[in-house]
Amino acid sequence: MTTTKRSAWLDDDLEDLRALARSFCEKQIKPNIEKYIDQHHVDRDLWNKAGELGLLCMSIPEEFGGGGGTFAHEAVLIEEQARIGDTAWGQAVHSGIIAHYLNAYGTDEQKREWLPKMASGEVVGAIAMTEPGTGSDLQAVKAKAVREGDEYVINGSKTFITNGAQADLIIVVVKTDTSEGANGISLVLVEADRDGFRRGRVLDKVGQKGQDTSELFFEDVRVPTSNLLGTQEGQGFFQLMMQLPQERLIIAVGSTAAMENALEFTIKYTKERHAFGKPIFNFQNTKFKLAEVATETRIARVFLDDCIVKHLQGQLDIPTVAMAKWWTSDRAMVALDECLQLHGGYGYMTEYPIARMWADNRVQKIYAGTNEIMKEIISRSL
Amino acid sequence: MTTTKRSAWLDDDLEDLRALARSFCEKQIKPNIEKYIDQHHVDRDLWNKAGELGLLCMSIPEEFGGGGGTFAHEAVLIEEQARIGDTAWGQAVHSGIIAHYLNAYGTDEQKREWLPKMASGEVVGAIAMTEPGTGSDLQAVKAKAVREGDEYVINGSKTFITNGAQADLIIVVVKTDTSEGANGISLVLVEADRDGFRRGRVLDKVGQKGQDTSELFFEDVRVPTSNLLGTQEGQGFFQLMMQLPQERLIIAVGSTAAMENALEFTIKYTKERHAFGKPIFNFQNTKFKLAEVATETRIARVFLDDCIVKHLQGQLDIPTVAMAKWWTSDRAMVALDECLQLHGGYGYMTEYPIARMWADNRVQKIYAGTNEIMKEIISRSL
Amino acid sequence: MTTTKRSAWLDDDLEDLRALARSFCEKQIKPNIEKYIDQHHVDRDLWNKAGELGLLCMSIPEEFGGGGGTFAHEAVLIEEQARIGDTAWGQAVHSGIIAHYLNAYGTDEQKREWLPKMASGEVVGAIAMTEPGTGSDLQAVKAKAVREGDEYVINGSKTFITNGAQADLIIVVVKTDTSEGANGISLVLVEADRDGFRRGRVLDKVGQKGQDTSELFFEDVRVPTSNLLGTQEGQGFFQLMMQLPQERLIIAVGSTAAMENALEFTIKYTKERHAFGKPIFNFQNTKFKLAEVATETRIARVFLDDCIVKHLQGQLDIPTVAMAKWWTSDRAMVALDECLQLHGGYGYMTEYPIARMWADNRVQKIYAGTNEIMKEIISRSL
Amino acid sequence: MTTTKRSAWLDDDLEDLRALARSFCEKQIKPNIEKYIDQHHVDRDLWNKAGELGLLCMSIPEEFGGGGGTFAHEAVLIEEQARIGDTAWGQAVHSGIIAHYLNAYGTDEQKREWLPKMASGEVVGAIAMTEPGTGSDLQAVKAKAVREGDEYVINGSKTFITNGAQADLIIVVVKTDTSEGANGISLVLVEADRDGFRRGRVLDKVGQKGQDTSELFFEDVRVPTSNLLGTQEGQGFFQLMMQLPQERLIIAVGSTAAMENALEFTIKYTKERHAFGKPIFNFQNTKFKLAEVATETRIARVFLDDCIVKHLQGQLDIPTVAMAKWWTSDRAMVALDECLQLHGGYGYMTEYPIARMWADNRVQKIYAGTNEIMKEIISRSL
Repeated sequence: MTTTKRSAWLDDDLEDLRALARSFCEKQIKPNIEKYIDQHHVDRDLWNKAGELGLLCMSIPEEFGGGGGTFAHEAVLIEEQARIGDTAWGQAVHSGIIAHYLNAYGTDEQKREWLPKMASGEVVGAIAMTEPGTGSDLQAVKAKAVREGDEYVINGSKTFITNGAQADLIIVVVKTDTSEGANGISLVLVEADRDGFRRGRVLDKVGQKGQDTSELFFEDVRVPTSNLLGTQEGQGFFQLMMQLPQERLIIAVGSTAAMENALEFTIKYTKERHAFGKPIFNFQNTKFKLAEVATETRIARVFLDDCIVKHLQGQLDIPTVAMAKWWTSDRAMVALDECLQLHGGYGYMTEYPIARMWADNRVQKIYAGTNEIMKEIISRSL
Repeated sequence: MTTTKRSAWLDDDLEDLRALARSFCEKQIKPNIEKYIDQHHVDRDLWNKAGELGLLCMSIPEEFGGGGGTFAHEAVLIEEQARIGDTAWGQAVHSGIIAHYLNAYGTDEQKREWLPKMASGEVVGAIAMTEPGTGSDLQAVKAKAVREGDEYVINGSKTFITNGAQADLIIVVVKTDTSEGANGISLVLVEADRDGFRRGRVLDKVGQKGQDTSELFFEDVRVPTSNLLGTQEGQGFFQLMMQLPQERLIIAVGSTAAMENALEFTIKYTKERHAFGKPIFNFQNTKFKLAEVATETRIARVFLDDCIVKHLQGQLDIPTVAMAKWWTSDRAMVALDECLQLHGGYGYMTEYPIARMWADNRVQKIYAGTNEIMKEIISRSL
Repeated sequence: MTTTKRSAWLDDDLEDLRALARSFCEKQIKPNIEKYIDQHHVDRDLWNKAGELGLLCMSIPEEFGGGGGTFAHEAVLIEEQARIGDTAWGQAVHSGIIAHYLNAYGTDEQKREWLPKMASGEVVGAIAMTEPGTGSDLQAVKAKAVREGDEYVINGSKTFITNGAQADLIIVVVKTDTSEGANGISLVLVEADRDGFRRGRVLDKVGQKGQDTSELFFEDVRVPTSNLLGTQEGQGFFQLMMQLPQERLIIAVGSTAAMENALEFTIKYTKERHAFGKPIFNFQNTKFKLAEVATETRIARVFLDDCIVKHLQGQLDIPTVAMAKWWTSDRAMVALDECLQLHGGYGYMTEYPIARMWADNRVQKIYAGTNEIMKEIISRSL
Repeated sequence: MTTTKRSAWLDDDLEDLRALARSFCEKQIKPNIEKYIDQHHVDRDLWNKAGELGLLCMSIPEEFGGGGGTFAHEAVLIEEQARIGDTAWGQAVHSGIIAHYLNAYGTDEQKREWLPKMASGEVVGAIAMTEPGTGSDLQAVKAKAVREGDEYVINGSKTFITNGAQADLIIVVVKTDTSEGANGISLVLVEADRDGFRRGRVLDKVGQKGQDTSELFFEDVRVPTSNLLGTQEGQGFFQLMMQLPQERLIIAVGSTAAMENALEFTIKYTKERHAFGKPIFNFQNTKFKLAEVATETRIARVFLDDCIVKHLQGQLDIPTVAMAKWWTSDRAMVALDECLQLHGGYGYMTEYPIARMWADNRVQKIYAGTNEIMKEIISRSL
């Protein structure tokens, strides 16, 4: 391998964290992946164990129970999770997305109530955005929260909700003013034990089978108006727009780590496996395909690192992160497909990690805004 | 849709067969797909039901219990099976491949013993070619049949065997002369009730989850020398080479039908589903992508039909069928990936047929000779 | 090479024509290609020589001086022209397009006046459709023909006109009713010796440098109203729509023949040229790339042949020919680019035919309706 | 446009240089591009004018008449040259490659004799590497220098030599020991006025038509042994291996700048040009294609900048620069092809810069080691 320098955003502390994260992934998650797949969710206490080790909410201020770190800390854990090929544990959504909605827009009370519990693993978070039939079109949200006295009465249904089966706290995207489009949208906190809240089945997906992606139903769910995220109605669309970039960057981190991981073990596999009297690696087609995968993997890494550095400086703009999201998720699938093919029949067997990685990563081109939406966003900046 | 003429190889009788096949697939298979997936194999009596209706061994002479038809009959059933998205039932391997080994090379006794039972569904057939570690390299086969008196003693292990869990009769690719490469290969019939034969687990694949693809183990399995397929040892490689084209054409039939099927329901889906206030179909990106899929689907069909017509005339050469195999399986994945994407998040959910079709069809680029092997074959003809 | 059967639309007579066409191309055109490129047009007497041999207007009825043949005759000549890599001679536009506008819509007088002269080569034809700034958007045509008594007064400018520098007769797309869109369009014949008609420069293109693609200017050009093509104003858009399919099929013929030609000489080149001690052909990358090119070339041929057969039966629909146009022109560029690359540095030198073929064929994705327009047309049929 | 920060390797001094370089390109080169194309070389005094302004040999030590700068200075000039679409002036080869062979391996006498003249433009340099029939296979070099007393007698022929028609000093790759492969290769300086040296024709290429790419012939050319580059025979292969990375990085600079340039003017073009009643830019296909081009252009820039920074630190390894060379030259052609297509018919006309850029840039995938060689190099590092 060519000598690659450590990414510019990494330092010794983060390398220590990587060692911890790697050990956690190897010991706590990897041996249980099949189990998670069978039960369609991780064990509930995985969250608590992670919380104990300080692996949750690492980029949330210590004041609110978090680790006081930055996105770099989240990125390290996401990379390590990708390295073992796990997609069951929705920690990135919990720590990297939900906690940041609270941290950025929550009232002091909301932060003090929820963030420490999210950091410890006592509370699992989810965000309920997509509705059956709306997809990436947020302005068409139909779920609504109608104010009655000092309560909101929430009705609606949501789908494709990561952590849906385990979440204790759900940020629900609703219309507080149905006569408005974007300006009528608000985010409201719903505790999972509220009357009228019901979890649907865990959705059967073609990949990410250990993930408890679920439907959620809200039928006359009453929450106090203090559950509004922030203090002002109609801010939801703006809040979503501000947080989506980090969600998309998380996808780019995962896609890039997947490419690196697949490249590494596919090189190993093709050097060990023989066909027609020589290692598969020695065929020119194998060498050229792996050279192509290695090139795009390296380029993805350099671009991602540049994005992370800019994000840490608060300078990552929305079109650039859209580029990172669509391109890395797109090229990851090209890379994974090629790596799968180089495994021959074994590439289709789940005992070889490439098989599930291929199916698991496909959804990265779809969620957090489809890659088509990313191109729309980019084109508006041209 | 543009008016497309009926494929040149179809006639009214085949259209009648299509109606029967469609009804069988809709009634007998479609309602049970989830069940097959859960149990990793079809119900055993599906074979018998198909046999009763004359849907097995349709291209085997009536003299041996078959339908007396041609490859066209097999193609119709494969198309109908693809139309419901079923990959659990290994009928194409049974009727289109195994039965033809017997019919082409078997002695009269072998044909009379096995073909009627295969046609009725009493016996399910499999062919055991691939070994752990050999992949597409047939000359490197390690399984061997050592002659002792009037018996062969067979030892070896095989993997990726379609119908492996249900097969009653297995054609096993062995070396009868281990000092030879291709010339040492023979095909030997092994009945599943022979001592020393053992089925391994059904392999967990990333797709085709209803298929009972298995490992098979042979430990001092003794069969009479009359179980040699044909009368002369060392013909196995030649026999395989002669039959593989039809196996590859079967894949091309399946891939093309999958494209047609996915195109049809994706057009429907994108016309019904709305986003941003209009049907998804109305976005130019959707229209262009579907136009591209529609074009390649049509071209695949025209090329496939030309191949089928030539095959029925005995004029389909090996490089041309290699072209059909790699190109249709490759473009099918491009088409299915695009169709999946146009479904948005639903494309990843198994309740929408595109999700499983995408994962199921991936292996078409790998088995029956990887697409890389196809390119080797084609290049030798240039 | 695999044995390929003769295309179904060919017969012995057409093979005789092929021999004649090949000889004509080899002797009359090939030695002069450099000269044509330098002067940006063919020698004027090439038309007369072709006319003498009966190579012009072969699909026009004998009654009007044509060959009494079909599109198959045109296809053979186009294929042979592509085989020597000539793009200077605009015969396909003259015989396959212009003559057919006259034949299909012209009055008996118009046919009797022009078709015999076009068949003999005395008159060269052109069609002036595109205007500076309109591109594929025919309804936006600005050139107009204003009726004054029994004359039309034509004003406007046209660009990208094949045969522009040599044409004696130009079919001009004009608005006869500027208050209308498509319904205001008419086709009017303009003889090149009319006052007010002026040829602009031959356009400097990146390829097809021997072609006299020109701008044409019409300044108060007066023609008798009997120069209207047909007898009724406002039929132009309909006439164009009806004739464009054949124009697009001509492109598909040229693109497919270019692929076949490039494949053939690139195989030869890579077998002769050595690098690193062996023929370039023997590298696996070369073999796989050529196998891919060979596959798409064969598939293009089978699909094109199917289109030609349907066209000869009057059953080729507009979306299908749009598929043939975009797909063959698109894949031809992929094939030519790969063939160029396999030539190494020589691929960039015009003394090797692949260089000019690559640049010459690029415009096939653009003219006669861009490939984007083709996708629009196809999508409307879905 | 998204706000992009200045590349990390740029500073204010380099921005001043950019202003100078831009002015030079705009005033001295751009108005003469057509003339250069017609005469197949730049005006000889362009070199002197550039020398006067200090634009030649900017990264050569001041001690030897150079600018005392770094590769960053070369990169700025290459970018500006790409920005006006000029490929006629072989300055990058002269300053970025030839001068560096002298600087790195030349004796003090060689450096003092040649570098100041190269910096002033008095002497134009070339390197004669490729031979008819060898391509990227340096070890197969046939040209030889036979030692006779204190002279070398050089015989051989070379082709594809940039600056071939104008070069005053040519570094010739020869075998000084024909019994050896790589170890027999040496670099020898040949002055253009030596007896027996002859320039062949300027090669007619499909692009880069203003470049004086030539054949060179050496027939019993006698040079003193002091013309050996360096002091030891057999070092040539090593010297080439050490310098090729910078040559490849130069290609990556040019390819990336071409993408940036094409993207910029294509956005402008599609916003100005209308079709079907609205700017071409407003069609979703246009937006998505430009978003894709913009993404890959940005990613190419970030990766290139990273490579340049590493190169300036002496830390750019050979496989990484091979990645940069193949990927940027490959993606540049994808981008340019798309930009050409979005211009419609105008994209094919040389008056629009995209047309020539498309043809000019094609050779970047071939020279300085074909992209296939790059993949070989990368695969060896895996």
